[in-house]
Amino acid sequence: MPELRKDPILGRWVIISVERGKRPKDFIPIVHKKKGGFCPFCPGNEYTTPPEIIAFRPDGSEPNKPGWTLRVMPNKFPALDPVGSLRKSGEGMFDRMNGVGVHEVIVENPDHYLTLSTMPEKSVEDALWAYYLRLTELKKDPRIKYVLVFKNEGDAAGASLEHSHSQIIGLPILPRTVKGELQGARNHFELKERCIFCDIIYQEMADGKRVVYENENYVAIAPFAPRSPFETWILPKAHQPAFGPDGKSFRGLAHILQRILKQFDAALESPPYNFVVHTAPFNEEQSEYYHWHIEMMPKLTKIAGFEWGTGFYINPTPPEEAAKFMRELKV
Amino acid sequence: MPELRKDPILGRWVIISVERGKRPKDFIPIVHKKKGGFCPFCPGNEYTTPPEIIAFRPDGSEPNKPGWTLRVMPNKFPALDPVGSLRKSGEGMFDRMNGVGVHEVIVENPDHYLTLSTMPEKSVEDALWAYYLRLTELKKDPRIKYVLVFKNEGDAAGASLEHSHSQIIGLPILPRTVKGELQGARNHFELKERCIFCDIIYQEMADGKRVVYENENYVAIAPFAPRSPFETWILPKAHQPAFGPDGKSFRGLAHILQRILKQFDAALESPPYNFVVHTAPFNEEQSEYYHWHIEMMPKLTKIAGFEWGTGFYINPTPPEEAAKFMRELKV
Repeated sequence: MPELRKDPILGRWVIISVERGKRPKDFIPIVHKKKGGFCPFCPGNEYTTPPEIIAFRPDGSEPNKPGWTLRVMPNKFPALDPVGSLRKSGEGMFDRMNGVGVHEVIVENPDHYLTLSTMPEKSVEDALWAYYLRLTELKKDPRIKYVLVFKNEGDAAGASLEHSHSQIIGLPILPRTVKGELQGARNHFELKERCIFCDIIYQEMADGKRVVYENENYVAIAPFAPRSPFETWILPKAHQPAFGPDGKSFRGLAHILQRILKQFDAALESPPYNFVVHTAPFNEEQSEYYHWHIEMMPKLTKIAGFEWGTGFYINPTPPEEAAKFMRELKV
Repeated sequence: MPELRKDPILGRWVIISVERGKRPKDFIPIVHKKKGGFCPFCPGNEYTTPPEIIAFRPDGSEPNKPGWTLRVMPNKFPALDPVGSLRKSGEGMFDRMNGVGVHEVIVENPDHYLTLSTMPEKSVEDALWAYYLRLTELKKDPRIKYVLVFKNEGDAAGASLEHSHSQIIGLPILPRTVKGELQGARNHFELKERCIFCDIIYQEMADGKRVVYENENYVAIAPFAPRSPFETWILPKAHQPAFGPDGKSFRGLAHILQRILKQFDAALESPPYNFVVHTAPFNEEQSEYYHWHIEMMPKLTKIAGFEWGTGFYINPTPPEEAAKFMRELKV
């Protein structure tokens, strides 16, 4: 019989449809091969993008020229506009505001054909530093209420350019997903005086069946109520509200992040995927109840009428099976 | 400059990204052509599906044989199981329940190659009657808290079989989307003593720029804060909380529903699409504040990291432009 499961933070139900039970090999891989051709993110084409904001240039090369190992620039077609001040207005009963915000792109490695799973681990570590540096900088802009860091890999997962890149969007309002998480975590804290994420980590590590991988400071789990097959969360084991290094290093995080992506590649023939960094809003960075984490989802299922109408998800792969499969992979 | 707009019911923000402004011809149509081959929904193959629940058989033919003009049967691979009683249980801090519910399929016309936009209007009217009959029947099952009626047309929109069909899912819990709508509508009613949907209809019809089409009892609008290009809502002009006929007929609704689907076909080269009937829960069918409607979305954009992380949507086509384009189409 299928099972309904509730995400303990958001209260979001999912249907784990075991009768439709899909193993990794049941998913028809979405073709996701880089074609090449002219690419604005490749070395030599720096002049085609807006000027870089930061770049890592171990050879001391000039800005906006080749020689970089990682490059951050404004999105040429931003979803939000960095210039101007926030203006709110009405239209009868409706509310709007002008789209002030920032939209930046992080190219994690100069090689067009690498992905975050195949590039040197050092590039992943650099990418995490770049996320952190931009988050720290954008915090100073009083118009920005929240900064979202995410990555779309592959056309089917929404990447419009195939050269691997991450994105940063600074928003003038707190997103409803973040609001929902904060509310759920706050409710739990009021009841238990404990962080709900710490509680999840404790239960999952004691139980083990949904643990995908762990290293010294991080654990990767298949969440109890995943929206999609092979959804995986990476969490710092110690309570930490806002995204940042452990001690002074991103090495451990880079390792586990790349490891999970390699597992996706091995299990699902290098699927397109999305991941999103969930971090506390700036004014909650000392929160006792929020705990930053990364939510990762290979793109294997479709959002259709049922999901639009309910806000629930139908997932044909129980997380215990996905976790077991991933744990046993040789990567 | 892009614009942020808030859906007045759910409080959901969308980014109307005018700089990325996409006209209908800018969308690469998703190939959506029926291939044929063996089909369990075609006449003659009735034996391959579970026995029918109801069927319209104007020729008085036998059940589960050809001769029908519309057929309703249980889904062969149901997301929820109709047998058994609801059991809730815990796993440490997590909550689950067994997946009791119903999942039915409505085949609206025997012809494999027709869609809801190309079949005779009478088939659309019959489909609406079938929705209504099943809703009325499922209401009697005490395990079912909500019935969702929806349609996925085309593989990209999540349809796993290409023969046109609608789906009905009876759920043991109230979906969070419905909860959110009820909450938003209730808040508005407490403030204004008016139905928020009636207010939207009044403002949109007075203003006109987002009206796509109207007939005697229904109006189709591009909502102020649409999640996707060409999103269109059909609402009864008079206050009516739960889905049902106007007077004793579904003729007017069948007409406007098919008209909008024909406009999608003409504007966007017969795109895949989803639509969802939003109706009051059984215990709120006399609600002063809820107002049933149908939300329709051609499948043109992708859900990616930004949407997963925020619950917001980026829409490259302002609804005023989409509505104008649709209004001026000859169909």
